[in-house]
Amino acid sequence: MKNFAIGVDLGGTNLRIAAVDDQGTIGEKVAISTNVALGRDHVLDDMCGGIEQVLEKSKNPANLLGIGIGVPGIIDMETGSLRGSPNLPGWAGYPVRAEIERRLKTVVILENDAKAAALGEKWLGAAKDYDDMAMITLGTGVGGGLVMGGAVWHGMNGMATEFGHTTVVPDGHPCGCGNHGCLEQYASATAMLRMAREAIADNPNGALARAEQADPKFSSKTVYNLAMQGDADAKKVFDRVGRALGIVLSSLVNSLNLPIYVVGGGASSAWDAFSPAIFEEMRKRSMVYAATAPPDPNAKKEWASAHVIPAPGRKTIVTRAMLGTDAGLIGAARLPMIPEKYR
Amino acid sequence: MKNFAIGVDLGGTNLRIAAVDDQGTIGEKVAISTNVALGRDHVLDDMCGGIEQVLEKSKNPANLLGIGIGVPGIIDMETGSLRGSPNLPGWAGYPVRAEIERRLKTVVILENDAKAAALGEKWLGAAKDYDDMAMITLGTGVGGGLVMGGAVWHGMNGMATEFGHTTVVPDGHPCGCGNHGCLEQYASATAMLRMAREAIADNPNGALARAEQADPKFSSKTVYNLAMQGDADAKKVFDRVGRALGIVLSSLVNSLNLPIYVVGGGASSAWDAFSPAIFEEMRKRSMVYAATAPPDPNAKKEWASAHVIPAPGRKTIVTRAMLGTDAGLIGAARLPMIPEKYR
Repeated sequence: MKNFAIGVDLGGTNLRIAAVDDQGTIGEKVAISTNVALGRDHVLDDMCGGIEQVLEKSKNPANLLGIGIGVPGIIDMETGSLRGSPNLPGWAGYPVRAEIERRLKTVVILENDAKAAALGEKWLGAAKDYDDMAMITLGTGVGGGLVMGGAVWHGMNGMATEFGHTTVVPDGHPCGCGNHGCLEQYASATAMLRMAREAIADNPNGALARAEQADPKFSSKTVYNLAMQGDADAKKVFDRVGRALGIVLSSLVNSLNLPIYVVGGGASSAWDAFSPAIFEEMRKRSMVYAATAPPDPNAKKEWASAHVIPAPGRKTIVTRAMLGTDAGLIGAARLPMIPEKYR
Repeated sequence: MKNFAIGVDLGGTNLRIAAVDDQGTIGEKVAISTNVALGRDHVLDDMCGGIEQVLEKSKNPANLLGIGIGVPGIIDMETGSLRGSPNLPGWAGYPVRAEIERRLKTVVILENDAKAAALGEKWLGAAKDYDDMAMITLGTGVGGGLVMGGAVWHGMNGMATEFGHTTVVPDGHPCGCGNHGCLEQYASATAMLRMAREAIADNPNGALARAEQADPKFSSKTVYNLAMQGDADAKKVFDRVGRALGIVLSSLVNSLNLPIYVVGGGASSAWDAFSPAIFEEMRKRSMVYAATAPPDPNAKKEWASAHVIPAPGRKTIVTRAMLGTDAGLIGAARLPMIPEKYR
C-alpha cells in the first residue's frame, strides 16, 4: 500500500490530473480541456470533479498525501493565490488553495507550472541525479525553474526563474511584459510561429508559404517538419530559437555554474532543429566546459574558453527534458511528498 | 580580548592586508603594491611579510582565527589553488593555500575577490540585513558574488557569479573570454575608457578629446568629471555603462528575485553618472517592483510591469556598495569567522 499524491497540470488549454505514487509510478489519469472562457468557478468545478474521479478509482484513498497543482502564473506562496496570470484572467488574488482545500478536505499545494516541471525532471527525469539544476520550459510562453540544494528556488516573493523574460536582444521584439527582446519572443511556440510568418513575408513563394496556404492547422510543428526536411527558411527560424536559448543558457552557466540545465515544455519537441545553435552559442559564450545529454558517453561534446582550467570529471550538461508533457504533472504530485523546505 | 582574522585583498596592482575583529572593526592595516612582474614567489613573500607585520602589531595574536585572501581569479575550492587568473600569470595550479599555511602556520581560506566583496557587503555593508543578495563589482574587469541563505554561492566548481561575462549585446565588442558583447566590455573601468576613446574618435574637437590631450593621466575618473559637468559625449559613455548594467540586473531580478542587488568595486564611484540609466532599463525590463537605496525613504522609486501584483512591503533594492574598496578586505577577513557551510 504505497502512499500517493495527486498532481494537477492546469494549462490554458488542457487540464490534466493524475495519481502518482511515492515511487513515481503514474496511476489513474484524467485529461479534460480547460474552459477558461467559462470563468474561474467553472474551471475549479472541473478540476475538483476530475480529482474526485481519480480518487474514486484509487485503491487506497486513505494513503493520499495531498494534491499538488501546477498553475501558469506567479503564485503568492503565503496566501496560496495567484498574483496574476495572462492565461487565467480573473484568477488574480482569489484564494485558490483555500477554496480547493475546503472542497476536497486535504492538503493542497500550488506551484508555478514551470517550477513544478523542474521539480518533476529533478525527481524522475533528466536531472534525477542532481541536487542543483535549472530548467527552461518552451510552451505558449517560456518559463523556468531552479532547484538549488534540492529545493525549488522561489526568490523573495515567488517571482524567480522567469527565464523567459531575460533580455536577449536589447532593442528586439516587444514582449507582453513591457520589455523588448525577451527570450520568450524568440523561443516560445508563439515566437516560432511569428518568426515563420516573418519568413513567409520575406519569401512569399517559399516552402513555408506554400505549407501555410495548404495547411489550415499551420503550426510550429509544420515549421519543424520543414526544417528537418532541410528547408532553409524553416531552419533559420529554429536557428534563431537556438541562438536565443544559447545566450540565456550561457548567462545561467556563467552566473550559477550548475551541473545541469534542462530544456523542456511542449515546444522542446523541436530540440533536434534548434539544439545545434544552442551548443554553438554556448561554445562561444559560456566560461565552463559543457556537454550534451549524458546517457550516451560518446555523444559528449566538450569545450573550454580562455583563462579557465576545467575541473576534471565535472562537466556542465545541457540536455533535453525526459518526462515530456508529464513533467509538470509529476512535479506537482511530488510537492505533497517532500518536506516544506524543499518546495 | 576579541577574536580577529586577517583579510588580504590581492589585486593586480595593490596588495592590502588588515586585521579585522569579529565585530567588524578594522585594526592594523598594510598596503603595498603588487609586483606581479617579479613573479609569484615574490608576491607570496611580500604577502606573508605583510601579514606577519600586521600580526606583530596586534595585541592578541593568540586570538587569530585565520587568514582570508581575496584573489582575482577562479579558485579551486578543494585544492586551494587558482584555476586561472589573467591578472596573476603563472599562478594557475600552484597550491597557494597550502604554501601560505605552511609558512604562517594558521588556517588560510582563498576566495575570489568579487565573492569576498559580496560577503563583506553582506556582513557590514549595503546588504547587512539580508541573507540573499547579489553584487556586481566594477573594476579593471567586472566580477560578481551571490549570497543565498547566508552562504556564498560557488556553483559546481567555483565558477559561479561571473556576471561580467553575461552577454548584453549578442554581436557586441569582443571580450577576452572568447565571447562578444559581455557586460565587462561595457561596464568595467577599462570599458569606460575604451568607450571614451571611441567618443573622442567620433568627436575629435570635443571636451573629451581636449581633456585627453591635456591630461597624461586621462582615466575613467576624468570622463566621470566631464559627465558630471554635463558634457554630452562623457554622459553618453556612462549611459552605455548604466544600460548594460540595467540589462544584467533585470535578468538577475527576473531569474533570482533577490531582495537586494549591490553595485560596487572601484569604478562604481561613477554611480551618480551611470545609475539613472540602470533604473531606466530596470523599469522596462524587470518584472518586479524595484527601489533605489533604502536609507532615504523619500528617494524610493517604484514601478511595476504588466501581469504582476506587487507584494506589499517587499521591494527589490538596487543600490551602491557601502564599504568602498574595503569590501573585499572585510569579506576576506570574514571567511575564517564563519562556519564552512557559509563560505
